[in-house]
Amino acid sequence: MNEQVLLYEGKAKRIYATDNPEIVRVVYKNSATAFNGEKKAEIAGKGRLNNEITSLLFKKLMDAGISTHFVEKTSELEQLVKRVSIIPLEVVVRNIIAGSLSKRMGLEEGTLLAKPIVEFYYKRDDLGDPIVNEDHISALSLASTEELQQIKQLALRVNDELVALFNECNVRLVDFKLEFGKLEDGTILLADEISPDTCRLWDKDTNAKFDKDVFRRDLGNLTDGYEEILKRLGGLLCSK
Amino acid sequence: MNEQVLLYEGKAKRIYATDNPEIVRVVYKNSATAFNGEKKAEIAGKGRLNNEITSLLFKKLMDAGISTHFVEKTSELEQLVKRVSIIPLEVVVRNIIAGSLSKRMGLEEGTLLAKPIVEFYYKRDDLGDPIVNEDHISALSLASTEELQQIKQLALRVNDELVALFNECNVRLVDFKLEFGKLEDGTILLADEISPDTCRLWDKDTNAKFDKDVFRRDLGNLTDGYEEILKRLGGLLCSK
Repeated sequence: MNEQVLLYEGKAKRIYATDNPEIVRVVYKNSATAFNGEKKAEIAGKGRLNNEITSLLFKKLMDAGISTHFVEKTSELEQLVKRVSIIPLEVVVRNIIAGSLSKRMGLEEGTLLAKPIVEFYYKRDDLGDPIVNEDHISALSLASTEELQQIKQLALRVNDELVALFNECNVRLVDFKLEFGKLEDGTILLADEISPDTCRLWDKDTNAKFDKDVFRRDLGNLTDGYEEILKRLGGLLCSK
Repeated sequence: MNEQVLLYEGKAKRIYATDNPEIVRVVYKNSATAFNGEKKAEIAGKGRLNNEITSLLFKKLMDAGISTHFVEKTSELEQLVKRVSIIPLEVVVRNIIAGSLSKRMGLEEGTLLAKPIVEFYYKRDDLGDPIVNEDHISALSLASTEELQQIKQLALRVNDELVALFNECNVRLVDFKLEFGKLEDGTILLADEISPDTCRLWDKDTNAKFDKDVFRRDLGNLTDGYEEILKRLGGLLCSK
């Protein structure tokens, strides 16, 4: 039995091997980090909420025909996913100007973009995850031109699905971060998580923040917003 | 007579109106600046050298069929160019890793790239000229998708020509910055300057620097390198 072999520990999750070499077990942590790990806290309930929300959203995306690593949620904090090699890019999709984009470009937070912006960041904590363009990605051999096109198209499809889903919950999907992984045969799958840790989610009526900005900016109790997102998504699913 | 109407003053040049509304007069200054204007000096001879080198290189590029704003060099410090509206992008082409790319990506300075990297920076001193991708450029309405494709292709053609030309002078073209302008009818022209202020130029045998890094990094007398570049380029042209 190799169920306790830790393959990887990130800021928000641990990945363990299972008896099946093609499947790994993800355990969500309660750690919250921001600003490239400079701000840290333990927040009770966060792991459970992110696991529930991610599982629910990945299932919805798979129903819409998008290939993901998700297999099943197995407990409050755990899920099984396909084993992939993660492509070291953070893929950010933006619908509304907020956060670093606002600061970097001198644009007002809250402005709706005419069409989504896709950004790629090189996952390198020691370099502060620098933004990269397609030529950098090619020079660093992070992904081929064809893979990158596929990733960008997948990210935009995920965006269309999630915008529509959150819209039904009266939530604005401001922006979010995705990661992708590759199977041994080269198939690219949506991986990692989609949760209020990795999305900016604003109430459509009040612009109240239901996401990690509450932690980044000390705006109140973080899990209240996460609970609200789960409630709205869950309510939506139950009513169908 | 409106010969003394100053239209624009940049860090390294002044632009004056002429009697012809389609032509402006560029006067090169001796000012050297680096690090977004934080480091400054007056360097005798720099204006003359950059005017000579730019005039010579733009003529070579026009001989190769590339459309530029250049009309003629009229004196030591002056040239006439077509009046364009400058597209607020710095277009950087890199053949060898150096400078900010090396720091940002954690890559070793001096590494030859398998193919050139093209980068776009939004010309906004107050924001520190942030790097932008094609989606940002579109969101900021700095250029259309078609214009951007044209600019990128032009930049790569300029690179091919300049790499070959400097190679004949035993100089490595490490990287350089271009700017483009638009005529009223929408035609895109190569504009601004191409000089050791805007290129990294290394001796092929010794890697000695003939460019503004000598000023940025306090490596010696700046104009010695510029004189050497002019001598090598001039010698090359005279021998043909």
